Amino acid sequence: MAATPADVKDVPGAYVFVVDMPGLRSSDIKVQVEEDRVLLISGERQREEKEDVNYLRMERRMGKFMRKFVLPDNADADKISAVSHDGVLTVTVEKLPPPEPKKPRTIEVKVA
Amino acid sequence: MAATPADVKDVPGAYVFVVDMPGLRSSDIKVQVEEDRVLLISGERQREEKEDVNYLRMERRMGKFMRKFVLPDNADADKISAVSHDGVLTVTVEKLPPPEPKKPRTIEVKVA
Repeated sequence: MAATPADVKDVPGAYVFVVDMPGLRSSDIKVQVEEDRVLLISGERQREEKEDVNYLRMERRMGKFMRKFVLPDNADADKISAVSHDGVLTVTVEKLPPPEPKKPRTIEVKVA
Repeated sequence: MAATPADVKDVPGAYVFVVDMPGLRSSDIKVQVEEDRVLLISGERQREEKEDVNYLRMERRMGKFMRKFVLPDNADADKISAVSHDGVLTVTVEKLPPPEPKKPRTIEVKVA
């Protein structure tokens, strides 16, 4: 699960990070922001073991995983929301409003 | 998603098939038995597209997928249950009771 697949979408007003996390509850998932510019998604899943289990096939990866994404310059690290549903985590990071165009400045011409 | 990972467990009384299916609702998943001996799990997931989406990264596989498992001889194809939770499907196939040990047969010795 170290390399769980993700999509990153650029939509009007936000960046959306969609990460496959089958078998993880919301409480198992951690979403963090480092230095206002790195989005860090991590979690861990473990096999629910009963006794008397004999594995005939074992393809599902267990253990810790992490994904890191550098946020674009116009992402607003203070406006992040995350929701998990059917084993898919969706993190939405709002965009900062575009900077206002700089107005032409008028420099006063002094009489020398 | 064609090769979505699966575990197969042999537990007392049953075989348990655990399949990662992130993003699929129960209604998107089909569990079938062919000829009483092949377990067929299939489904399809699609990207939920809005307009004005620009993909910066696209790792999650979409489309149809299928997994086939030959059931062991002592699996009871009439006693199968399936439940989906947090993007993980669990299919439980009960085992048939073990055949009763054959009692020694007594062959009557006729008087010739």
